[in-house]
Parts: sequence; structure tokens; C-alpha cells
Amino acid sequence: MAFTRNPATGERVPYGDFLTNAQGEDVVAGIRVTEPLDAMGSRFPECHVQLLENMKILENHYRDMCDIEFTIEQGKLYMLQTRVGKRTAAAALRMAAEMVEEGLIEPKEAVLRVQPAQLDQLLHPQFDPKASFEPIAKGLNASPGAAVGAVYFTADDAEEHAQAGEKVILVRPETSPDDLHGMIAAEGILTSRGGLVSHAAVVARGMGKPAICGAESIKIDLKAKQFKAGDVVVKEGDVISISGTTGQIALGEVPVITPEPTGHFAVVLGYADQFRRLKVRTNADTPEDSARARSFGAEGIGLCRTEHMFLGEDRVAIVRRMILADNEADEQAALDELEVLQRADFVGILEAMDGLPVTVRLLDPPLHEFLPDTEELAVKQATEGLSSEEEELLRAARSWEEVNPMLGTRGCRLGVIKPGLYKMQVRALMEAAVERKRAGGDPRVEIMIPLVVTGPELQLLTNWTRETAQAVIDESGVDVDYLVGTMIETPRAAIDAAAIGAVAEFFSFGTNDLTQMTFGFSRDDVEGRIMTPYLTQKLIPANPFETLDQAGVGELVRWACERGRGARENLKLGICGEHGGDPASVHFCHEVGLDYVSCSPFRVPLARLAAAHAALGAGGPGSTA
Amino acid sequence: MAFTRNPATGERVPYGDFLTNAQGEDVVAGIRVTEPLDAMGSRFPECHVQLLENMKILENHYRDMCDIEFTIEQGKLYMLQTRVGKRTAAAALRMAAEMVEEGLIEPKEAVLRVQPAQLDQLLHPQFDPKASFEPIAKGLNASPGAAVGAVYFTADDAEEHAQAGEKVILVRPETSPDDLHGMIAAEGILTSRGGLVSHAAVVARGMGKPAICGAESIKIDLKAKQFKAGDVVVKEGDVISISGTTGQIALGEVPVITPEPTGHFAVVLGYADQFRRLKVRTNADTPEDSARARSFGAEGIGLCRTEHMFLGEDRVAIVRRMILADNEADEQAALDELEVLQRADFVGILEAMDGLPVTVRLLDPPLHEFLPDTEELAVKQATEGLSSEEEELLRAARSWEEVNPMLGTRGCRLGVIKPGLYKMQVRALMEAAVERKRAGGDPRVEIMIPLVVTGPELQLLTNWTRETAQAVIDESGVDVDYLVGTMIETPRAAIDAAAIGAVAEFFSFGTNDLTQMTFGFSRDDVEGRIMTPYLTQKLIPANPFETLDQAGVGELVRWACERGRGARENLKLGICGEHGGDPASVHFCHEVGLDYVSCSPFRVPLARLAAAHAALGAGGPGSTA
Repeated sequence: MAFTRNPATGERVPYGDFLTNAQGEDVVAGIRVTEPLDAMGSRFPECHVQLLENMKILENHYRDMCDIEFTIEQGKLYMLQTRVGKRTAAAALRMAAEMVEEGLIEPKEAVLRVQPAQLDQLLHPQFDPKASFEPIAKGLNASPGAAVGAVYFTADDAEEHAQAGEKVILVRPETSPDDLHGMIAAEGILTSRGGLVSHAAVVARGMGKPAICGAESIKIDLKAKQFKAGDVVVKEGDVISISGTTGQIALGEVPVITPEPTGHFAVVLGYADQFRRLKVRTNADTPEDSARARSFGAEGIGLCRTEHMFLGEDRVAIVRRMILADNEADEQAALDELEVLQRADFVGILEAMDGLPVTVRLLDPPLHEFLPDTEELAVKQATEGLSSEEEELLRAARSWEEVNPMLGTRGCRLGVIKPGLYKMQVRALMEAAVERKRAGGDPRVEIMIPLVVTGPELQLLTNWTRETAQAVIDESGVDVDYLVGTMIETPRAAIDAAAIGAVAEFFSFGTNDLTQMTFGFSRDDVEGRIMTPYLTQKLIPANPFETLDQAGVGELVRWACERGRGARENLKLGICGEHGGDPASVHFCHEVGLDYVSCSPFRVPLARLAAAHAALGAGGPGSTA
Repeated sequence: MAFTRNPATGERVPYGDFLTNAQGEDVVAGIRVTEPLDAMGSRFPECHVQLLENMKILENHYRDMCDIEFTIEQGKLYMLQTRVGKRTAAAALRMAAEMVEEGLIEPKEAVLRVQPAQLDQLLHPQFDPKASFEPIAKGLNASPGAAVGAVYFTADDAEEHAQAGEKVILVRPETSPDDLHGMIAAEGILTSRGGLVSHAAVVARGMGKPAICGAESIKIDLKAKQFKAGDVVVKEGDVISISGTTGQIALGEVPVITPEPTGHFAVVLGYADQFRRLKVRTNADTPEDSARARSFGAEGIGLCRTEHMFLGEDRVAIVRRMILADNEADEQAALDELEVLQRADFVGILEAMDGLPVTVRLLDPPLHEFLPDTEELAVKQATEGLSSEEEELLRAARSWEEVNPMLGTRGCRLGVIKPGLYKMQVRALMEAAVERKRAGGDPRVEIMIPLVVTGPELQLLTNWTRETAQAVIDESGVDVDYLVGTMIETPRAAIDAAAIGAVAEFFSFGTNDLTQMTFGFSRDDVEGRIMTPYLTQKLIPANPFETLDQAGVGELVRWACERGRGARENLKLGICGEHGGDPASVHFCHEVGLDYVSCSPFRVPLARLAAAHAALGAGGPGSTA
């Protein structure tokens, strides 16, 4: 075998790297020792000259790194086979960039030579491919990257040990907003429950931190501070390695490599930007995430969730006061307090994304997410008893508890029955925009109303939004442009897109929820239990939460685009589900005519490249390349 | 005012009923005392003769009961106005039947003169329209009819007092299968939680028993055995009246009238049957319900749920053994026990529906419905402690607990991961059919696989079903025909109907779940909290669980019909959601070309009439008449 380039780094290797002294199976099996190609010069000088000649011909012909098989029999060189060689992401980028420089290929071809999915390798640490280890368990690969650290079972313990300089892995049955400080402190996160949109998975992806979720085979004993994986017992402080890219969990330290994106990375992505039609935005909820995504080339925020603006110990207390309020004045007082806090949140985000569109989604989750766990309180009630405040919280939690929260009183339904809530958010956002404008900034606000099902529903909320926004503009005397649109995330909204498109200025496809409702799949419930048997028995073609299901969900997206644009020609169309960072799905988004895709910050480069591939007609929508 | 017929009974009243001695507002306000029309004969003999003449002309012209306004001024009769008069259901039926007899109208017109929705009046007791009372609260009108009884708060208490001869109303926060004996004993059911598909609502409708659900304004205190409605405290044993037709709750006894369907009822429905194209089946789970529905004219079972075959104290114990089994032998042993019990259930149903198709839906709900409540056990664990069996049950309940059970591991997903379950059901059903055939019966079995999302998924389960059925046929030497089909209840199944129709021999639209997923509405959660504000603010045109949402869910049904029939020309199409008993929805089902509708036994007559109206082109799909 011989290469014209080093397949690991992409460096040119003018005299080749390897020479076999055997043939066939022996070579493939790797049981014979190879020699450098140079050695051939002394042993078979004529054949060596001829081979180098042939290699030049082949590289010029294929204009690519080739993998060549040849043999020498009775002093005669036989070329057996050649094909374009496999390569790492780094090698692919380097070769593509250099070959353009050398005039060997056009930028277009350079772009097509790098597979979008490969870029993940460059943006996250990975287990060293040469390392050998025996996984003790496997979970869902919820957030890519690899991490090594000592196991801790509470956020407080994880934070404490991290502050003492130890690298830690936070292990929890599942995480909640209360665990946030532990997640920030940890190198990686491992949970035994929850799917790819569980709290742990979503937060970890946003942070670009490795996570494995729903590792149902590990049995966590929080009291004993240990977990079992088969017969292996892992105690607090024991070191494990996790790969959120593969879902593998190993005991002890697995060597990790951290590839550094090189200049070639920027060059090739720059080429990609010349060809793509789709804009690439990011899903970001904080100024830090926004800035990071922008550095990766994000052209705005496609989804700024506002949930976190209601969380954190201090804020939850205010939110609870709002929920428990038995009169309007108390409710409004709590909302006013929140408004001040959220305005500052918005200012930070608008500043980080100055000059680029920022789509802010009004509050989406059901209210009970801000209330304590009823079972915990019920147990406390039966044992120690509850304070009168806790009694009140338990009552509220019970009254807001839902059988199927995903299909319950959340999103704009909450907006309709608690009008003060959305008005407060719109006020805080518009005041932030005014503040930015006064500071010389260029805020571009898009207000997104979630979970809409009919035109009149969106109309009511749009009216409230516009009245509130106009009031801020009038009071401040500062004019701020803004759009009001909606998320298309219920099948009904997609079907009735003509009525909804007549009201909305933009649609953003929330393909996570749209997939959940179209399949009737609650990710938290089905990803752990049925996804594997369904995939192995080929009952579904792919995990529809990773790659957009074109025969089902895709049909709804297609209809919604057609019907929506039928009602409003210049309707802005985007996607903010996680599919925005999946190459095959990006291809589909290009094909149906969306204006942009939006994905987590770390997937922005991948989406830029995938968008270019789609525009260049490479790979089909069914391709997962 | 004068009528040519008595608007309450439909009886011919040759000399009219009323004579006004006043005009205009006074008449309408009802403040003047009226006199019988006869009295006019002595006071205005000429006008009287002329009026009777005019009345005959009008009735012959309109061929219907007319409501006439006239006046006499200075000895001269003036006819002021006439219109077709309003009437009760009983009157409408009588007039329609009699006018056909008299040759005044054709059967077709007779059918069109009775509004399907009116028939509910005839099949259930109602509050006397003349009664005056002040409702103390209102809930969802979950099952039509009126009932009066003493309030009891547990199923045991209700049963005990009913057995002692007292009429009782069972009042519960919500009901579960454990309350069944109390529901059977009660005249009516009132719950403070749950929507129109809550356990209480569905069971009550099946029983034809009045029920009000989700009456959130009443505060039930189970310990004190009382509920509060505003300031009114209702204690155990106090008498209340409930109307499941209107949702009204009143303290004390409201007079109730129980209309008796007359011969006219049968005559007019007989006419209806001549015109309709749609077959009318029923949703029935027991031999009793099947027989009752058949007496109302049901032409088969469109939905036989099998959940109840897993319930009841003795069976739940077996089901739990199956769930807890840690080896295949124990699991199979439990399944074998269930099979024997379920075979007998099926025999009874097939016997009651002999000669008519019976669509049996394989198990649909998630397994945790057969496990105890985790919170209750957790509290017990923290206080008294648990037995080792209870500990095991708590672990199982926790492991099967789901965040959104509606979108979780239920229906055919359970079938896929627990293959023994569906095979057991198919065996029990086919063995029952063999037994019926041996007894000289004519069982017509249709096996329905619920919650399908893709073609390959249905193919796998259809293969298992056919193998199991064939084995029963081979073993017994008795040949039994059967169909295998699926419920279309996820949006994805509707969209991908071409692939699914290539496998299924029939589709039955499960429009309850289809509506829940298309809107993202969990009925248990949204009907109590958001349906009212949404309806009053006109954000949705109607409650989509009562009248099929044609712009959204209806589009999916339409597509599925087209695509399904495209894949299989003779695909049998039906609907088994509750919309099968709603007149406007029945019209839609006719229009899209379904073969049958299926509804609860008490709605069968209504559906027969609505199907005839649809075939005769009366009322639009948007009409709620």
C-alpha cells in the first residue's frame, strides 16, 4: 500500500510511507512488518522510479489523495488497485485547502471533499482511536466529546472537588436546573435516565460538554454514593472515562486527544460560505453561548430559550410567588421583579449578537417545572410534616401537575391564560433593545410565540405582543424594528399553515416537538426503551430525533412551507430543532427552501459546510454523510 | 300564537292550543294569560272559521307543523307571520312518522325533519325543562342524562348505600378501575378532575350513565367526606342533582323526566337506514354493551378495547406477576393464565355480535397503569415501611413510570418489546372464535393493532399475528376468517398511509388520540384548564374532541384515506373515536368515503340518523345540527 498523503494529517509524503513485503490477506491482517517506500529504491530501483511516476499520474488524475495497491513479481511492477483514500477530518481539511492553493482543485471541490459529520472530531476531544479499553456500560451519546474524571453523585460534591482542582464527572439519575452548578464544574455528565432531549443532554450540548444520558444498565445508589455496571462497582472518587460521541463508559482513564482546528478549517469553511444559500444561526440562551457561536460563524440566534431566565434559586422564588399569588397585584409585583432581571439577560444577548437577528422564544415549559416535586413533598408531609408555605407549594404543584406535560398547559397556552407573563417578557426584551439602541447598538429582535395551533390563537397573542412593544417604543421614544412569528411544532400548525402564515412574519420549525407529536414519541420515555429495538429491527429507518424523518415529519414541513408562503410570500422560514445541525436534515432544509437553520454553537461549522454541500447538490437528503 | 300540532308531543291539535288576548311584547313576555283556541269560536266565530281554514292551508303548504301569529282587529282576522315550529325530539319523531303515514311527506323528508342531536333527549333522562333551580357549580358534560341521588365519596360507600336501596351519586376527584363497583351502583358520577376521555367519562358513557367530569370549582375533602362549591358545603348523604347533558350541578332534587322512545322512533330510524351509506358500529367491551348496542341497531363492533380484560383484582395480580417476572418461564405462566380468562371474555362478545364484525384492539395503555401509584407507595415506605413484594412493585412502577405516558411505551410499542403479550391476546381471541364456530356461531374477527407509526412496524406485528392465528386454526382444524388492520391515531401513520395501507386490511381512525397529537392537547390536562378560555375567546372553532377538527385532523384523515386506498383499493375504512357519534363529524366521515362509524351504544341511533342526513346531503360538515 502507498499513499500520496499522510491520511492522518493530510501532509504530502512525496515518497510514500509504506511498502509491503507481502501480498493479499497478510497485508490486510497487518501481520507482516512494512517498510518505508524509500527502501524500495535500493531493492527495486526501476520499479521504484516507475511507481513514483504512476503515483504522480494518479494524484493528478484524481486530484486527490489516493490509496494504491501494487505488487512486484519477477522484477515487474503491477498496479493492482487505486481509490481515493480515507482520511481524518484534519487531513481532509488540510488537503482540501492546500490543493486549492496549488491550483489542483477549485474551492467548490475542496468544500465537497470534507464531510460535515467529520467536523465533530475537530471540535471536541475524543477517545484516542489507538487506545484499547473495555467499556463497562453504554448509554445514549447525548453530547459529543470525551472526558475523564472522578465520579461524584451530587452537584455540590462535584463543584467542591472541581474547585479543589480535581477533574470530575457528575453522575446523576437525571439532572434538573438545581444541578446546574455541578454540570458547569464537571468535565462530563452521565445520567441513567432520560433521552437526548433530557435536561442533561440539552444543557450539555449547549455547553459543548460531553454527556451520556439514559445509561439504563448502570444502577445508581445515591445513598451509598456508588453505581453498579454489571458486576463492576464504581464508588465516589473513582475515575471513569466517558465518550459522549459513542456513549461508551470505561473504568479508569482512557487517553483522550484534543484536535485543534487549524487555519485550514477556517479556509475551507470560508469556501463553504461562498456556496451555501442557507443561513446558519445558533440556539443560544446566554451571552457566552452567543459569543462562542458567533466565533464559529453563526449569523444570528434562531432560538433563544427563555426558561433559564425563570430559574436559579433567586428567580424561582419570584416565579413561585407569581404562581401562588391569589390577587392580581401580587402577581404583577412578582412579574415586575422578573422583568428587571430578564431585561439585563436580554441586553447581554443582544449585545453579543449585535447586528444579527435574535429570535427570542417566549416561555415554553409548563409552570409545574418551577414548582417542587410532589412526591418528595408528600413524603415529607407524611413524615416530618410541612411548613404552611410548603403546604401551599404542594397544593400549587398538585394543581399544576399534568398527566402529559408535553401536551399540556405550556407554551402559548400559558400565555393565553396568564397574559401578564408574555407581556412581561415582551416588555423586558423591547426595553433591552431600546437600551442597546441608546448605547449605539443594532439590536434585531424577532419575537417567537411557541406551540401555536390556530390562526386566531396566534392573532390574539400577536396583538398583545405588538401593543406591549409599541408601548415601550412610545414611552422611550426610541424606534425598534421587530418581527413577530411563531414556532411550528404541532402537526396542526403545520397543516393549518395558511391561516397561521397570514398572521406570522416568520415560521421556525421546532422539529424536536414536531417529531415527538407526529410519531407520538415522548423522547424522555421512548429513547431509552424502544429506540434500540426499533432501530435494530429496522422498524424505523433512523432515529427521527437525529435525522429528520422525511416521509412523515418532513411532509408536514413541506406542506407548511408551501401553505405558509402561499399566505405570505416573504414569510421567513427557519428550523430550530436539533436537526439544524444534522447534515442530511440540513440538506432537506435547503431543498424545501428554508431561509436558515439553527443549531447548537458547536455544530455551527458543520451546518455551514452541510449547507454548502446541499447547495452544491452533494449527498442526497437520505444520505447521512 | 297557534300551532297545528302540540310542539311537545307532536300530537295533532285540530283546534289549536292557544289564543292570545294581547299583542307584541306582552305575548312574548308571557305576562298575559292565554286562552285555548276553542274559546275563540264563541267570541269571534267568523274569524275562528277563517283561521282554521288558514291553518289547514298552511300545514298543507309547508307539510309541517307551523307556528302562526295572527291578530283580530275590529272583527277582522289578520295573519301576521308563520314559520315551521320548534319541537321536541318526541314530537319531531311522531310528526315525521305520522305525516308519512298520511301521505303528506316522503320517508326521506321524514328523516330530514328530525335532528340527530335531538335523539339524545330520548335516550337519557333529562332535567325537566320547566324546573327552576340554581346550579351550585358546573363541570364538563361528560356523559349525557340527568340523575338525582345522595352523595358518597368512595366506591364502597356508594355501593353499600345503593344496595340498601338509596339512590346515590358517586363523587370522586377522579375515578380509576378500582372504583368500578361504585360507578355501577351509582345513578351518576361527578369528578373534580379529568376531561372528556378521563376514566370516569369513558366508562360512564359506555354505561349510558350521567357523568360530570373536571368540575374544578368543587373542592373535595375526602377525609371530611364533603365537597365545597363556593360557599355551599355538601356533606356525605346530601342529595344533589347532576345533568351530564349540560354539566350543571344543583343542590337538592331537580325534577327529572325520562322520555320513552316510542314506535315512531323505530319507524323514522328504519327510514334512515334506507338512505344511509355509512354502516354504524359501536364501541363495546362487554357482552352486555354489545347486546345493548345491537338492540339500538349497531352493525358490529368498531372498537372492542381489551384493557378491562387485564383489570379486576384477580387479573391485576396476574398482570403484575407477568411484569415482575425475571425469567421467560414465569412470564409465560402468567400469560397462560390470562389467556384462559380472556378467551371466555371474547366468547361472550363474539356471541352477542354473532354474524357481525368485531374489531378487537390489542392492548393499548402503558404497563404502569397496572401497577400501583408510586407516590402512595413512597409515602408508605417513608412511614410504615413496605413489604418485600411492595418494594418490588415500587421498583417496577418507577421503572415503567413515564413523563408523558400518552406518547410513551404503549400500544404496539409494548407489543414489540413484549412479544408474548399480543400473541397471548391473538391466541385467546382466535380460540374463542373457534369455540363459537364449533357451537354453530358465525364469528367475524378483525384484529386491530394500535398506535402504529410505520409500515415495517405493522408488518412485523401482522406477521406475528398471522402466525399465531394460523397456529390456532391448524391445531383446532377449524377455519376462521379474520382481518388484520390498524388504528390510525398518530399523525405519522396518517401521513405515511401508503406504506401502512400496503400492510393493513383495514384502517380505523382513532380520532381521539389523533386529535390529541395533532393539537398537542392532552385531554386530561387541557380540557379542564384551557378549553373554556379557548372557546370563549374563539381561538378554536369548537371543542375538537366533540366535533372533528376538519381543517387540521380532518386533513390528516382525508390524506390517509386517499393514500391508504391508493395502496390497497379495497381497504376498509372506519372511525372509532368518539366523533363517530357526533352529527357534523359523521357527515365528514360520509364525505371522505369511510365505510363505517363506530360510537358508544347510546349514540348508535343518533349516528344512524346522522349518516342518513349526510347521504341525503343535509347539513354541511360544519353544521352542528
